This record gives sequence, C-alpha cells and structure tokens, in this order.
Amino acid sequence: MMSTQQIHSSSIEYRIIFGDTDAGGIVYHPRYLELSERGRNELMRDLEINIGNLFNESNVVFALRSSDMKFHSPAFFDDKLTITTRLERLTSASSVWVSLIRRGGTQVCTVRADIICMNRANKKAMIYPDDVLKAFEKISITAKQK
Amino acid sequence: MMSTQQIHSSSIEYRIIFGDTDAGGIVYHPRYLELSERGRNELMRDLEINIGNLFNESNVVFALRSSDMKFHSPAFFDDKLTITTRLERLTSASSVWVSLIRRGGTQVCTVRADIICMNRANKKAMIYPDDVLKAFEKISITAKQK
Amino acid sequence: MMSTQQIHSSSIEYRIIFGDTDAGGIVYHPRYLELSERGRNELMRDLEINIGNLFNESNVVFALRSSDMKFHSPAFFDDKLTITTRLERLTSASSVWVSLIRRGGTQVCTVRADIICMNRANKKAMIYPDDVLKAFEKISITAKQK
Amino acid sequence: MMSTQQIHSSSIEYRIIFGDTDAGGIVYHPRYLELSERGRNELMRDLEINIGNLFNESNVVFALRSSDMKFHSPAFFDDKLTITTRLERLTSASSVWVSLIRRGGTQVCTVRADIICMNRANKKAMIYPDDVLKAFEKISITAKQK
Repeated sequence: MMSTQQIHSSSIEYRIIFGDTDAGGIVYHPRYLELSERGRNELMRDLEINIGNLFNESNVVFALRSSDMKFHSPAFFDDKLTITTRLERLTSASSVWVSLIRRGGTQVCTVRADIICMNRANKKAMIYPDDVLKAFEKISITAKQK
Repeated sequence: MMSTQQIHSSSIEYRIIFGDTDAGGIVYHPRYLELSERGRNELMRDLEINIGNLFNESNVVFALRSSDMKFHSPAFFDDKLTITTRLERLTSASSVWVSLIRRGGTQVCTVRADIICMNRANKKAMIYPDDVLKAFEKISITAKQK
Repeated sequence: MMSTQQIHSSSIEYRIIFGDTDAGGIVYHPRYLELSERGRNELMRDLEINIGNLFNESNVVFALRSSDMKFHSPAFFDDKLTITTRLERLTSASSVWVSLIRRGGTQVCTVRADIICMNRANKKAMIYPDDVLKAFEKISITAKQK
Repeated sequence: MMSTQQIHSSSIEYRIIFGDTDAGGIVYHPRYLELSERGRNELMRDLEINIGNLFNESNVVFALRSSDMKFHSPAFFDDKLTITTRLERLTSASSVWVSLIRRGGTQVCTVRADIICMNRANKKAMIYPDDVLKAFEKISITAKQK
C-alpha cells in the first residue's frame, strides 16, 4: 500500500578515479552528467524498468532536450560521492530528473535533465511506452496530483 | 583602431570520432561541454591569453559555477562540427560564455557556462588577473557599456 | 596466518552506461583502461593502501609506463561487468597489474598495465614507499618467491 | 605514378584541454587511444575512404582486437600534440596501425592497434570491403611486398 511512496528517489555511491578528474585537481565537470545518467538508470532499475531491453528490443532511448548544472563545491580524487536522483516533473512525452551529488554532508553538484523518449532507429521523439509512463508516475509528485 | 571590434567570437572545427558518440548512435551529451571548453580556450588564445602559463606559473584556473545546455538536434559519427564561442557577460570575478555548436546550417547544441577564476593551490575564488580582465573586456559587450 | 593468501585478487562490479559506449553499439575500448584503473584502486584499498592520502600528502601517483589490451568479445549498454584485478609482477620500482573484465562467464577484455611510482610535484620516477611495497608483496607471487 | 608512395602516413595536431588531463597534472592515458582513433580516421580520410558512409550505409565498423601503448613522457594541459599514423601490417581481414604522439621533438606515446572489420548489425567479423582493402594496400609496405 505504501509502495508508491517508498521509491521517491534512488541513491548510489561512486568512487572518483583519476579518469574523472582534471589537471585542476578536481572532478572534471562533464563527468557529473555521466553520474546523473548513472543515477537515473539505477532509479529506473528500482522501478523495474529494463532499460537494456527497451533499448535493444524496442529501440527506445532516453535523450536529453536540455540540462543544467550547479557546481557547489569541488570533488577530488578518491572521494566517495553519493548521487541521489528523483523525478521532478512528468508529462506523457517528457520528464525532468534531478540528481544531487554530494560527498558526505557536502553538496558537490546538482544536475537537472529534461528527457524525452526517442526511437533510436529513426531519431524521432515519441511518447513514453505505457509501462514506462506508469512506472514514472509512481514516483512523480506532479503526475500523482493529476 | 577597429581591433577591439574584430574578435567578438571565435570559431573552431571539430570532427566527431567514435569516442564522442554513444550506443544511441549520437554524440554523447557531456562531450558538448568538452567542446565548449575547447571553444573558450581557443577564444582566449585569440585574445593572447596564455592559459597554459596562467595555469602553470600563476596557479590560475577557470572553474565552472554553473552551466546549462540546450540540445537542438543530434550530431553523428564523422560529423564536422563548428563551435562558435563568445563572452556574454563579464564582471571582475565572473564571466558567462556561450558556445553555439552546429553542423553546417543545423544547430546542434548551445552551451552556456558561468565561469569564475580560482587559485588551484588553495581552491579559492579570486578576481581575474588584470591582463586577463582587460582582454575579456575587449570582447564583452556588457563590459564596454559600463 | 592465511591472510597473505587471501587477497590475491580483487573483484568489483560495474554497470555500463551510455557514456561508456560508442555508436558501434559496444563499449568504447578506452573505457576498459578506466575500468582497470578502478580495479587496481579497489585492490589497493583492500590492501589498506590509502591512495587518496598518498596522492594528497605524499605527492605519490601511480603512472603507466606501458599497457596492452586484448578485446575478446564486445560488451553492451546496461551490461554488468566484473573486473578482477591481480598483481602479476613486482620490483621495488615497477609493477605489472592484470585486469580481467567479463560479463558473467564471457570474457570481454584483458588489460595489462606496467605501473611505476612518480612524484607528482617533479614528475620524476621514484621507488615505491616502504609500506606500499610491503602491501604489494603480500599479493605478488614473484615477490614472495624471493 | 608516385601517388602510392606519397601517403605513407598522416599527421594531425591536437590541443590538450582540461578534459584530456587528470589530477596527476598529465594527460590521462586512455585519451591517447582516442587520439590514435582520430589519427586513423584522418589517415583513412586522406585515402578517400568515407568512414561515415561505411558506417551508416554499409554497417561497417573498424573494431579493435588488441592494442598496446608505450608512454615515453607525459603531456600536459595546453600542449599541442602531433599524431602521426601509419599502417604497419595488412591482411584481408586485419590491419595493424601505429600512432606516434609527440610534442615537438619529444616523444609522448606510441599506440599500436590491431583492427578488424565488423558488421555492426550482427557484430560479426568480416573481410574488408574491396575498395577499403585497395586503399589500405596503397599505404601498406607489407601488402605491397606480396
């Protein structure tokens, strides 16, 4: 009964390697976009959405329409970061995901991604498949208010 | 006499390799942030700012405070992209740069980056060195309006 | 008593994201070098070597002298890979690490890396710090035979 | 008449950005594999092989079977590197390419890549298409000796 309440967000951990950093001694900022992809993928896995099958069998990919990032404080080599991802807004053809990236209690970066569904064969936008949309609705506050 | 008018933006070309793409068959979006770094660096080079020396000898790095991206249409393997970068806004301690990325006449991506100056030894924000600020002012419309 | 026998290798898991793949639909090969870095780091952590402190406080970095890779079969988006890393050869100033990367029972890639110790301040090669060498000797067959 | 002699190798230049470096202050080694991909692609372009069309229309991709790298000396932020690529060995189904990467007169890295031809739809190895093989033969010493 409480299950739709329980998966509002997903948290994963990620250890910074040299490959994530730059000569400034800090994590190179585009890597945070990769971490937010990782966070969204794991949140979808928690929702039992099989993104591998969607991609391979249904040609469905999630593509970005826009993204913005705020860098609060730098992260460093060997840091263990936590990426907490939630679905902020949902319509039948688009969704906005927010990933908060932190090291312990220190905020590192916030990534917001506006994502559409695309058929990878013809590169055309499409509405979300029914079961995907239903899964997303479970964790979307705006969708539940409808 | 016209020289401050002549360098308002810088354009570079970049050929997409497999390393820039993802399994969706398109350029992986964080790569556009790398292309915008490349564009800013070349614009600074045009302004005779030696970013290598600044980094190595003065410990000065340009760090992002925030960034946002709009994805207009996908780019593909072997595309030749043009990255046109200009300085949109300038204060003594921050600057906003915009890179327009396109394939011929087709807009691919817009990247906006809000950049501060940081001492890489102590990771503290600093105002821009005098000669850097003077160079930036040459190409900044807002600065010249002051 | 058996402890020197117990840590011969370290295995970690890694989930492939879009950022790891290329337009050929498979993992882009340089990413396997990143996975092998990740594997070596975790093996060192198992040995209680604090690579973050070594880097930050002692200026010690592990740098590659050479590397070779064999690609056995491709890996794909959303695959869960296992990276098993062991120390193959050890002297006081160099070490050879092997990472076997597989998806379940399928071999994907083998990465061999010949690694030296470098002072990151002056970029000069150095012998391994004593406690690092002792830790490496615990898991090196060649070293134990001495 | 001399044309088969003229294109033995291809040289391109590449400027190092922060995204190519790591916290050790040097170019992160997997990036050299990307530079060697870039070098091979440009050499093929010099040979009038349209790798974009091959990929899009004929499903042909060049995939690595193995690769090895030697790191001679580090490269740094803002370095301008030269990548010189040549075809070292050729058979009807495989080829070995060598990229020498240097900064001015200083050798930085050597990358050797053993490359096969793959149908990207079924991920099966194939022999090189006829016109590709003919183009490769123009620059391969071993092939010409046959």
